[in-house]
Amino acid sequence: MNQDYIKPNPWSLIEEGFETDRVKSSESLFSIGNGAMGQRANFEEYYSGDTFQGSYIAGVYYPDKTRVGWWKNGYPEYFAKVLNAPNWIGINIHVNEQALDLATCKKVTSFKRELNMKEGWYIRSFQATLPNDIEVKVDVQRFLSLDLDELGAIEYKLTVLNSDANIRMTPYIDSGITNEDSNWDDKFWNTTSVASIGNRAFIEAHTMKTNFATCTFMEATAEVNNQMIEVLELQDEELVVGCQFQHELKTNETITLTKYGGYTVSTNHKPSELIDAANHLLNEASELGFEVLLKKQKQTWAAIWEMSDITIEGDVKAQQGIRFNIFQLNQTYLGKDSRLNIGPKGFTGEKYGGSTYWDTEAYCLPFYMATKNQEVAWSLLEYRYNHLEKAIENAKKLGFSNGAALYPMVTMNGEECHNEWEITFEEIHRNGAIAFAIYNYYRFTGDYSYIPEMGLEVLIGIARFWHQRANYSSKKKKFVILGVTGPNEYENNINNNWYTNYLAKWCIKYTLKQLQKVKDGYPVDYDRIIAHTKLTSDETDLWDEVASNMFFPFSKKHQIFLQQDGFLDKELIKVNDLAKSDRPINQKWSWDRILRSPYIKQADILQGFYLFEEDFSIEELEKHFDFYEPFTVHESSLSPCVHSIQAAKLGRMDQAYTFYLRTSRLDLDDYNKEVEEGLHITSMAGTWMSIVEGFGGMRVLEDKLCFTPQIPKQWKSYSFKVNFRNRIIKVSVSVDNTSFELTGQEEMSIRVNNQRVILLPGKQVNV
Amino acid sequence: MNQDYIKPNPWSLIEEGFETDRVKSSESLFSIGNGAMGQRANFEEYYSGDTFQGSYIAGVYYPDKTRVGWWKNGYPEYFAKVLNAPNWIGINIHVNEQALDLATCKKVTSFKRELNMKEGWYIRSFQATLPNDIEVKVDVQRFLSLDLDELGAIEYKLTVLNSDANIRMTPYIDSGITNEDSNWDDKFWNTTSVASIGNRAFIEAHTMKTNFATCTFMEATAEVNNQMIEVLELQDEELVVGCQFQHELKTNETITLTKYGGYTVSTNHKPSELIDAANHLLNEASELGFEVLLKKQKQTWAAIWEMSDITIEGDVKAQQGIRFNIFQLNQTYLGKDSRLNIGPKGFTGEKYGGSTYWDTEAYCLPFYMATKNQEVAWSLLEYRYNHLEKAIENAKKLGFSNGAALYPMVTMNGEECHNEWEITFEEIHRNGAIAFAIYNYYRFTGDYSYIPEMGLEVLIGIARFWHQRANYSSKKKKFVILGVTGPNEYENNINNNWYTNYLAKWCIKYTLKQLQKVKDGYPVDYDRIIAHTKLTSDETDLWDEVASNMFFPFSKKHQIFLQQDGFLDKELIKVNDLAKSDRPINQKWSWDRILRSPYIKQADILQGFYLFEEDFSIEELEKHFDFYEPFTVHESSLSPCVHSIQAAKLGRMDQAYTFYLRTSRLDLDDYNKEVEEGLHITSMAGTWMSIVEGFGGMRVLEDKLCFTPQIPKQWKSYSFKVNFRNRIIKVSVSVDNTSFELTGQEEMSIRVNNQRVILLPGKQVNV
Repeated sequence: MNQDYIKPNPWSLIEEGFETDRVKSSESLFSIGNGAMGQRANFEEYYSGDTFQGSYIAGVYYPDKTRVGWWKNGYPEYFAKVLNAPNWIGINIHVNEQALDLATCKKVTSFKRELNMKEGWYIRSFQATLPNDIEVKVDVQRFLSLDLDELGAIEYKLTVLNSDANIRMTPYIDSGITNEDSNWDDKFWNTTSVASIGNRAFIEAHTMKTNFATCTFMEATAEVNNQMIEVLELQDEELVVGCQFQHELKTNETITLTKYGGYTVSTNHKPSELIDAANHLLNEASELGFEVLLKKQKQTWAAIWEMSDITIEGDVKAQQGIRFNIFQLNQTYLGKDSRLNIGPKGFTGEKYGGSTYWDTEAYCLPFYMATKNQEVAWSLLEYRYNHLEKAIENAKKLGFSNGAALYPMVTMNGEECHNEWEITFEEIHRNGAIAFAIYNYYRFTGDYSYIPEMGLEVLIGIARFWHQRANYSSKKKKFVILGVTGPNEYENNINNNWYTNYLAKWCIKYTLKQLQKVKDGYPVDYDRIIAHTKLTSDETDLWDEVASNMFFPFSKKHQIFLQQDGFLDKELIKVNDLAKSDRPINQKWSWDRILRSPYIKQADILQGFYLFEEDFSIEELEKHFDFYEPFTVHESSLSPCVHSIQAAKLGRMDQAYTFYLRTSRLDLDDYNKEVEEGLHITSMAGTWMSIVEGFGGMRVLEDKLCFTPQIPKQWKSYSFKVNFRNRIIKVSVSVDNTSFELTGQEEMSIRVNNQRVILLPGKQVNV
Repeated sequence: MNQDYIKPNPWSLIEEGFETDRVKSSESLFSIGNGAMGQRANFEEYYSGDTFQGSYIAGVYYPDKTRVGWWKNGYPEYFAKVLNAPNWIGINIHVNEQALDLATCKKVTSFKRELNMKEGWYIRSFQATLPNDIEVKVDVQRFLSLDLDELGAIEYKLTVLNSDANIRMTPYIDSGITNEDSNWDDKFWNTTSVASIGNRAFIEAHTMKTNFATCTFMEATAEVNNQMIEVLELQDEELVVGCQFQHELKTNETITLTKYGGYTVSTNHKPSELIDAANHLLNEASELGFEVLLKKQKQTWAAIWEMSDITIEGDVKAQQGIRFNIFQLNQTYLGKDSRLNIGPKGFTGEKYGGSTYWDTEAYCLPFYMATKNQEVAWSLLEYRYNHLEKAIENAKKLGFSNGAALYPMVTMNGEECHNEWEITFEEIHRNGAIAFAIYNYYRFTGDYSYIPEMGLEVLIGIARFWHQRANYSSKKKKFVILGVTGPNEYENNINNNWYTNYLAKWCIKYTLKQLQKVKDGYPVDYDRIIAHTKLTSDETDLWDEVASNMFFPFSKKHQIFLQQDGFLDKELIKVNDLAKSDRPINQKWSWDRILRSPYIKQADILQGFYLFEEDFSIEELEKHFDFYEPFTVHESSLSPCVHSIQAAKLGRMDQAYTFYLRTSRLDLDDYNKEVEEGLHITSMAGTWMSIVEGFGGMRVLEDKLCFTPQIPKQWKSYSFKVNFRNRIIKVSVSVDNTSFELTGQEEMSIRVNNQRVILLPGKQVNV
């Protein structure tokens, strides 16, 4: 926990004071991104202190050789690592030939960072006394353009305060970077050309093995009192290139260096035209200038917030928390490119490798569906369709056949990027989340077209997998699914994880229904799909047999479904009865002790009750919540949001609020003391769900948008908007009133607290 | 499989013909060792072809930094690696300044290796045409002295066949070695001094971290026609030192180089006296001379064989197989030093790390008890007593308390050397094997003294572990043991592995009995132990409650115990019904597929029936054998021996013989295509058990030695000896007769086929 280090503020993250211990944490928290690239909030000038340098280009990866202690058949030999990309932000500063380095300054005062979430920019300012006793004041502003998403801009202002001084500024780009999490210290980048022309510079480098060609580029200008400073050539080094500006600055005079930089990449350009494309971008940027680019940035962010903002009155920390989550999700993924996805650390770190987890379908999709046009959600679904062949290959590698598909646990390009057998091979419920997302997309958007076009093939591959993965137990006289890990990763290689079995059954039944629907409504697509998949009714009969006879562990005594066959054999001591010194168990206990304990890392059966809530009564939910919640330790960032939603549904608002706080300020308050490694991006969508689906009670039932609004007693009011089938509804909830406002032309019928409510365009309706 | 590469021969391994592909395999098979050190059969002269260099000193290890893909709490940060030691066998040969290198010779003929198991020496001979067309004949003989176990000797004879030639021979020692299985390419050795004086040379080096100081030493002499050749000085290199001999050899003349070498180590000498000790040894060796040393070697091996040989008439491959197994066990461990143990690869390779597995107690102990004086078995037990404190620490690390002990899965010095959670943390049945060995030692030797002196404390630590590791299942109303891996490592993290639960119960009950027995018979020891362990009757009451109410999964339908709770939920397809292309499953199938299959890597319940056979009727054994054997794939070298014994017990001699062949020639015929990595030493003791306990039916029942002799139809006769309570009995079994011969003074009563038989000293008794 790290409260009050980030000042409470509704729209900004603000840090005041320079603490070397906090540098890496702040580098994560103040990260900026624009969906196409992103970077940690590293200093522009040289810094000899402890830092974690990170710049990332979306979709650019390296297949690192797998590292294991003991090899298991089925492990991927290589897997995709998010790659640290060449650095374009560097600006070295010398004052009377003394390097400015915050780690060696005699004094640093007025140090401040601000990440302005409303407008999408980051500033840093400080005053420092250099070892040569010269005092300088520095103000830097930086942003990554949302409009020109290969471009970033920096304005670096330096003032000398206590004497005249010779200032030398060296903006540069550098491809001599490494990954902190490299397995074997492989060289990931091969630099092929380094060039500077006047105030521009270019480094062409391609990734080893994957051969992504990139051009890292920059342009810099400097001025004092509106006078441009002459650019000096810098000797090109092997991996570093740039230019230089030198000026005799008078006391209290300011030199302003403006730097544009970024990447052009072979994913979007011909490899031979990367420098041309970079020059083109730099021409555009210098024509517009820093101020105009910044103005556009503010406008674009305003448009994003217009649709996705959640306001909270009366609780500034909750307000800051939810905006930080929404801001980071938008920095990470904007849905412009179906090759990209939502990495668990976004552009804020490189831990885990790969970019895509089941988090995308289970947690992120609802956020993007409700706050963007539906093309964004389509992109996320299309991503999985594009990986279908690789998912089939992946299943084949593990012994499945006939087009059965197992999507990887973690992936970048469709190939598996993970190597813990109990996860990689056994956490197969991920396949179900991908199928559920197809259903969820149709349920929310009303757009069926994805299913005949792409989705049905994905569903067939997944249904085939479940059919093959289950086996008949002659003892239980039911189909069982053995050797799995459920969402609760604190149980491995268990039998009949209720969540997994339920999803498996649902996937098959849903696929069978869609087969019929596509056959009836889209005969051309149906014929194409049947021809391609060679699906027969004999096969679907077998699927149906498995789904109809699936086993679900159930306790008659407790009248609850069991998380897995052996759950009741455990020693059922509740979390509250554990000594404090035993928590968090993932730090205090050995792995085997965790595994045989009843403690649940994240919602498992309750996750199933969340996805399939219509299948269960409120009494059943209550019984399962009361049974399982006391064993849940929430040591996954994905757990509290589901519990918050379920607690709200049960009318337990205090509990719901506690869970909400835990999810929304996880990184800001650094609950797990690991924010320096990067942010927890995907769970941020869960925070959004806690408010909209938890407190707001938003659901889609029988094609209707429904709400059961509640408000935590700590809040005066809150509001959010959703885009439901291209109609924008703003929902405002206060202690004694809920109002709805509909944008557009036509009226719309919704349900509030199970009552029908008609919304008229432009008219506020109070309930 | 690699049949007929090693010529069938009752007493020797013979290889004929030079095949570069076989060099690494032969280096393993022709390995020599003397319990204190050992080496792969690497060539003395330089060899540029594919080779795996290995020299090992017993007990000298390095704590290598653990390598894992994903860290789990409880993993050891470092673990002991068997260390490749400096090489002392090297003798480089130049013929007219052309290096002799078998990989570059124009022609190699008459290449032959022989490992003479009867006399304990290894020869290699060949004729070769060098690139300069000179033909040479080489005969090398090498052995590691059993009497001076820090010393080895080489006689290297070279004859020029087709012209006169200048011969330069360079015997050297070299500490520039590396481990093939190093995790991080750490430097393991630090060389501190390199010196040569005349024809002697010394390298002092110590291991990094563990700081074992060693002196690698050598002395060489050379002669032609009984004329000594003058020794020339060699310039010392950083890590290499030696001397040189040069001679103008006439056609058909022979130069003979004799080299003594070896190691003195700080485990047996003061670090400052290593060179003195080496000089002392070299004085002794050169005084005795090669021939006398070799004669002593033959005598010592004769004494070993006198006691441990098994003869088989009518089946030379079976004969060669069993002798190879007995020979290797004796090369690996002689029981002289209780700090040492029986490494799974002995001195033949470095795979796995650590030296001690539960193999020692479960498989090797019976061999050493029956073929050596009982001090050897005592040494093996004492080893575990000496590691008790570390076993308690190890358990503590995993969350146990109050002196509970968990012995490591793999160890060198008592610390854990393994890092697969499903093995390291969960294959806890090893603890039971250690307790069983204490019982087995007393049962076989009749010597109770180990228990009050040392064993009871070990038993208390183990009983405490089982008591804490079990938990009460309110569902089953019994104590359960969750999350284990049984001997069948093809099931992980299972609940209520019958074998583990049975051992746990037995351990507690046995410990309670021994507590009473020591209290009654050894009150001083008892008081000491109770004071030290702080054991109370409250605690032992709790143990007893757990043991008395242990759960054992049982199938009413099949009337068998289940290997674990979920076994019958599996798809029970027998091994014979698997496609050939699916075998071996550990190469063909992904790990998850193996885990959810019913296939058994090695005897599990049948292993329990082996250890506790008196607790079960022959009908029960048959039922369990018939149920489980068809699912057993024997992909562990430790599996066929137990099945051979059980099949013999059931009178199924054909099956027993098939299992015997599989275990006895595993390495000779290279069943698993991995012999080049080293030999499977510990399972060799299982081969011995297959004959003595399987075919011979030897048991100790109620203090009496018992036999139920049978003979495979492929054999004419076989014989073996056992040392039972310091009485040597020779058992000879032929198709129609079994005879017993007792050595010593007193008569002795045994049981044969459940009939009492009186043996009189020196008199053959036929049954």
